[in-house]
Amino acid sequence: MNAKIVKIGLVGYGTVGVGVAKILIENAAEITTRTGLRVELACVVDKDTTRPRDFDLPEGLLTDDLNVLLNDASIEIALELVGGTTTAKDIQIQMLKAGKHVVTANKALLAEHGQTLYKAALDAKRCIAFESSCCGGIPIVSALRTGLAANKITGLYGIFNGTCNYILTNMTHFDADFSDALKEAQNRGFAEADPTLDINGMDTAHKLAILGGLAFNCRICIEDIYVEGIENIDIVDIRSALEMGYILKLLAIGEKDDGKVSLRVHPSFILDHSPLAQVEGPFNAVSVFGNAVGNTMFYGRGAGMMPTASAVVADIIDIALGTSQHLFETMPMATESHRTVAIKTIDDIDSRFYIRIMAKDQPGVFAAYGQVLGKHGISISGAIQHEWVGPQNTVPVVITTHPTKQKNMNAALKELEQLDIIIQKPVCIRIVDIPEDKEE
Amino acid sequence: MNAKIVKIGLVGYGTVGVGVAKILIENAAEITTRTGLRVELACVVDKDTTRPRDFDLPEGLLTDDLNVLLNDASIEIALELVGGTTTAKDIQIQMLKAGKHVVTANKALLAEHGQTLYKAALDAKRCIAFESSCCGGIPIVSALRTGLAANKITGLYGIFNGTCNYILTNMTHFDADFSDALKEAQNRGFAEADPTLDINGMDTAHKLAILGGLAFNCRICIEDIYVEGIENIDIVDIRSALEMGYILKLLAIGEKDDGKVSLRVHPSFILDHSPLAQVEGPFNAVSVFGNAVGNTMFYGRGAGMMPTASAVVADIIDIALGTSQHLFETMPMATESHRTVAIKTIDDIDSRFYIRIMAKDQPGVFAAYGQVLGKHGISISGAIQHEWVGPQNTVPVVITTHPTKQKNMNAALKELEQLDIIIQKPVCIRIVDIPEDKEE
Repeated sequence: MNAKIVKIGLVGYGTVGVGVAKILIENAAEITTRTGLRVELACVVDKDTTRPRDFDLPEGLLTDDLNVLLNDASIEIALELVGGTTTAKDIQIQMLKAGKHVVTANKALLAEHGQTLYKAALDAKRCIAFESSCCGGIPIVSALRTGLAANKITGLYGIFNGTCNYILTNMTHFDADFSDALKEAQNRGFAEADPTLDINGMDTAHKLAILGGLAFNCRICIEDIYVEGIENIDIVDIRSALEMGYILKLLAIGEKDDGKVSLRVHPSFILDHSPLAQVEGPFNAVSVFGNAVGNTMFYGRGAGMMPTASAVVADIIDIALGTSQHLFETMPMATESHRTVAIKTIDDIDSRFYIRIMAKDQPGVFAAYGQVLGKHGISISGAIQHEWVGPQNTVPVVITTHPTKQKNMNAALKELEQLDIIIQKPVCIRIVDIPEDKEE
Repeated sequence: MNAKIVKIGLVGYGTVGVGVAKILIENAAEITTRTGLRVELACVVDKDTTRPRDFDLPEGLLTDDLNVLLNDASIEIALELVGGTTTAKDIQIQMLKAGKHVVTANKALLAEHGQTLYKAALDAKRCIAFESSCCGGIPIVSALRTGLAANKITGLYGIFNGTCNYILTNMTHFDADFSDALKEAQNRGFAEADPTLDINGMDTAHKLAILGGLAFNCRICIEDIYVEGIENIDIVDIRSALEMGYILKLLAIGEKDDGKVSLRVHPSFILDHSPLAQVEGPFNAVSVFGNAVGNTMFYGRGAGMMPTASAVVADIIDIALGTSQHLFETMPMATESHRTVAIKTIDDIDSRFYIRIMAKDQPGVFAAYGQVLGKHGISISGAIQHEWVGPQNTVPVVITTHPTKQKNMNAALKELEQLDIIIQKPVCIRIVDIPEDKEE
């Protein structure tokens, strides 16, 4: 059988762009054997054509003129690997109007301007493919769209940000402070010089908007997602929770229950023997629960040149095979023009909680603590107070609770703050019970 | 957009057949929203039409006449869920000749008669899809064919048999004997009344033949795979290795190195903190190493009615979208008529080993033991001898080795057997160092 030739144009010859070029040239034979496709890089556009890169492109491919790509009718698929949410958006729209299918790794752009772009694609009868926008090399977009398509998805639990996971892993294993762990992540190349979008949870939320939309067949706006970052995590709480059998992760959570979808990103204590608790360092993982398949988990590198490039090439293949176009046309997150799903807000979610107060070492502390919680209907499930007295003659008193509504917890915390037995605001972190797929 | 109607015929209305029918009827709306397809069950064939099942089919679908399916030209896709390697083979060939694409969960049939069936399919210009034949609901076939298609795959490490994993997990955690753990697995429905093919490793080998073929782009014969089962595993060795930081798994291993492929299934000690070591009970997992993506892992239920049915429906979707046909036409394991890959046999594989001898409690034991190993160029990496004397005044002396060739180990074992300081054949189990995907 003759291999079908598929011509590609690439815009943004940075880290991921170089990775894609490397794969298309060095792994070409494998790709053809596996898929019957001959994927050819026809044009690479970057405003900087002189900076040295790690990989030598064949002569004549690199240009600073986007029109070379747009005007080449033989190019079916165009890759936007520029990043950012302004120029990248214009470039995608120009590529779609020129009749190219678009492949992108740009989760921020899709999460924030997806509707505009999806409409432009549908109008042009082209598609946008975005496997590489979520969890690097893990083929999770494809799994949600076809591999698990037989399922009603009830839950999606993920570690979507390698920077946060690297920081939290180091805090947990090496008892490092947040600021030291962040510095280490920056030194090792796992965090940007400005890590704001990673550590404040927004990067994770962008990915949850995309994967949640696919899992629950709906359009998710970034405002639908409750977001808390890891900036204020204190090593004291990681230590205490470890002792109680919990590991701290920045978790993206999507759940569907009674027709309502809830979406949140926040620091979460999970049981230390659960599969997601084993995901360490810069790795990502997604646990998906389906009504037929039960619990599945997908694990791999969530970022980096080659893993991301691997996913970009997977999208090229899916477009060349015709799969992406078909699925894009029916994708609710592209086609829905208005809200079709009911969102359950954080206030209505039942959760367990971890609370630490710094209490004065005097009689009546536990009674006062317990009384406030009891008054708001919150039941204690575990407690630790070590015989150790810290600064200002205080002791950390840690409790965990049975499930309760966020609004009850908010009211209880407000009241706890007023107690004269404590010397600072209580620390409160959610405990997430990931459903167990028990033996039948 | 109007949903495309896809008509399905199903043969073998047993456990998985019932699961597929349930999904196609109960999850129909989700499937349509997600994929734009309306998958309709048009005909269900089983020789027993009267036995009560867990699910009520719509009136008139069930028949005992295969011709009803074969002669219905509106049926594009036929599911063979009969099992076994004789009738099932005939049925598949009849379905292909009648112009149907075939979906099957039958790994034994594909591993043993794949060539005949693939040829019949290519002759009929139809395809055979088999996502459900390996690892139940985990979409690993799809991941190898498209999601990771950009990669040269260097290694594939898997827990493919839930029965064995359930038994080994129980031995490890509850210090159960093999026979007690097997009985428990049978009582809980995780092992067949005749568990031979599971515990002797053949079921795992069937799956490795299929997944290895996809990973390494070649045709693998079942004879290419070295197979050892878990029948002779003694709890004493699980205990000793735990102490040294190892967990015992029945591992399927496929590796490609210097153009040669090695394939083996055997009990394997792996580091207790590696991701595969966390896979417990009836779950399956596959760790895939690609030259771009690094390490990825896919985890889920490896068997059972609904997970397997989930994968069957994934195949129906891939055929309806046209993906499967295209990939099937180019699939080396279907199209290769002769051996095109060099196989590295077990004798040439370097491995680390765990060895236990039952030695008489007398002077000179370690010296004699060490001398034999040294003579064959085998270097000791760890050792344990507890101050405990067992039956016949013997003590278990356990050592682990640095990597050595199988043939050196065989020669050393033969010589060890002859030593008068030991009272029974030495126990020898391989230690598998799964490559680590280290931080860059």
